[in-house]
Parts: sequence; C-alpha cells; structure tokens
Amino acid sequence: MGEAVREPRQDRSRATRQRLLEAAVDCLAEVGWTGSTVAVVAERAGVSRGAAQHHFPTREDLFTAAIGYVTDQRLAFLRSALPTLPPGQDRTRFVVEAIGEMYAGKLFKAALQLWVAAASDEQLLAQVVPLEARVGREAHQLTVFALGADEAVPGVREAVQATLDLARGLGLANLLTDDTKRRRRVLGEWAIVLGRTLDG
Amino acid sequence: MGEAVREPRQDRSRATRQRLLEAAVDCLAEVGWTGSTVAVVAERAGVSRGAAQHHFPTREDLFTAAIGYVTDQRLAFLRSALPTLPPGQDRTRFVVEAIGEMYAGKLFKAALQLWVAAASDEQLLAQVVPLEARVGREAHQLTVFALGADEAVPGVREAVQATLDLARGLGLANLLTDDTKRRRRVLGEWAIVLGRTLDG
Repeated sequence: MGEAVREPRQDRSRATRQRLLEAAVDCLAEVGWTGSTVAVVAERAGVSRGAAQHHFPTREDLFTAAIGYVTDQRLAFLRSALPTLPPGQDRTRFVVEAIGEMYAGKLFKAALQLWVAAASDEQLLAQVVPLEARVGREAHQLTVFALGADEAVPGVREAVQATLDLARGLGLANLLTDDTKRRRRVLGEWAIVLGRTLDG
Repeated sequence: MGEAVREPRQDRSRATRQRLLEAAVDCLAEVGWTGSTVAVVAERAGVSRGAAQHHFPTREDLFTAAIGYVTDQRLAFLRSALPTLPPGQDRTRFVVEAIGEMYAGKLFKAALQLWVAAASDEQLLAQVVPLEARVGREAHQLTVFALGADEAVPGVREAVQATLDLARGLGLANLLTDDTKRRRRVLGEWAIVLGRTLDG
C-alpha cells in the first residue's frame, strides 16, 4: 500500500484471481467435476495456464476456493439486503424465498458437483469437509440473523436448520428439471409454519 | 411356466440380474459414477462380463435399472411395515424417521452419483429424468398413505412434499460426514410440526 507503483499489480492479480474463481464455478456447474480442470478454467477466464497455476497450484485448491468465494459473495449480498426488509411474516417469507432461490441456482449446482466428487476422492474430501462446515455455519448464522430468530426458544434452532436442509433438498430436486413452481409452493407453506414457530 | 425344465433357468437368470443390480448400487455409492462400469459391476457380482452385457446392453441401462430396483425394494419394505404401526403422533414420528433413514443411506448416495452425473451427460439425463419422476411419485404416494394424510386439507400436500425434500436435504448433509445426531433432532421437531398440519 505504501508504494504507489505496487498497487496496480496487486489489483490486477486480484482481478485475475476473481475471474478464475467465477469461471471455475461456471465450469463445475456446466460440465461437472470430471471435465473441470485448471487448464479448462484458465481458458474460459482468458488467463494463461501459468498464471492460473500460480494462483491455484492444484485442481482441488481452485475449485474449493471457488465455491468458498462465490458463497461468501452471495451471503454478503443477502446480508446487504437485510436493512431494507419489512418486519414480521413478510420478512420471514422473503428470507425463506431468498434462501430457496440461492440453493436452486448455479452456485448450488457447482457445489453439488464438488461434494459428490469428494465422496469418492480422499484428497478432495480433505479440503471439502472444512469448506462444508464453514459454509454451513455461516449460512446458519445469517439465516438466524435475517429471520430475527431467538434460538433459545424451544424448536427454533431446529426450524432454522430445517429451512436450510429443505432448501438443499429442493435444490437437488431442481438439478435435472425446472422445479420452480413446486418449490415456491412448498416454501410458501413452510414460511407460514416457520413464522408460527418463531413466534413461539 | 408350463415347462418344468425352463423354470430353473429363468430363476438363475433373475438371480443373476438381481446380483448385478445390487452390486451396481454398492459400486456407485462407493466409487462414484466415473469408476462405475458394467465390467466393474460384473466382477463385483461374480458374473461374466458377457452375461452382464446380455442383461444390460449399456452402462446407463444398468445403473438406472439398479436405482429403480433398489428403490422399489425399499419402498415395498416400508409398505410392509405399515400395518404394525401405532396411530397418531407416534405414527407420524415413525414415518418421518424411516424416510430420514432411507435418504441417509447407501441407496441415496448411489442415486446422488447418478443424478449429478446426469446433469452434464445428455444420454444419461434422458434415462434419469423419467426414473426421478417415477421414484418421486411413488415415494410421495407411499408417504401420504403411511401418514394417513388427507391432501384435500390446505397445506397438507405441501407438508408431505416438504417432508421428502427435507429428507433429501438431510441426506445430502450426511454425504461427507456423519450427520445422524443433528438429522434426528431436526426430524423430531419436524414430526411435531407435521403432526399439527395433518390435524388441520
């Protein structure tokens, strides 16, 4: 930061890194784990293979970093929308819908490819398990905050967890066919049930 | 059936087919789609590659048939347990738990491999989409029947669907690490909420 001349290079490096991470998520979601390599992602991002390898020495590094980075971005976006939300049942419905849409999109499809590949790949598993734990924790904390939920009330903690598990299951049901209509109906009813639970 | 001499051969053929189908589910769950071929499954089942190819001309045929067959078996097993179930809230809890266990096991891990591979493989997709629709329909019908649910009551149909979507999401959370304790807590609370919805 002290040397004015270094900043542009750092910015460039950061921009390259972000382009690689975003291209990695697109690639995973579209062609799956088997066809997703550092070289394929570098080409998609318009970055030389050498530069890609400099940022991410292994394939596992690139794809776990990509899911972590894009998840953080989505959660930050949701968090930024919170101050504008109405209170009460409208808020509950909005939050439930936003979570449902998050798990129905490209990021979830990409993460699913990584999770499922890790189930039969020990090297990948070692990197995905801590990522899954971190992402799960942060999604839970944000949901509690967004709903204004009091986890000391019996059943509330489980209802918040069920909201995320339900969204994950609905995301899976949306993988091969468009399940949007059914998902919105199920989440609409769930928002009513959840609202009652939050009120204790 | 008329010729006594033909029956043993038909029995042998059916037994071979069943061994292949069960070995295919084990294989998918353990090594994933990429490592799962007709040859690998034939060896695991102790069946010649020629015999395996006779029963299942393509890899897609074998694995979609395997998920369909083992799912039918599980659903039939659940159905056979129904007459012994107690009524009321105990029944709701039992059914919710049984569904949760089904999606936490080997069959779900295998199906997940197939679903996720189909997301980026058009040939496989064409066979998995009708299978997913059939399995989803049958699981829903059995759950309605098992719970004694009246889908004419507002919210009941969505609550039954949410039960299955929640179980799927919990199954996913159990893929890489043992999530049994948390799953049972979430499903225990869900059974209470579901019971209230069923009562109208």
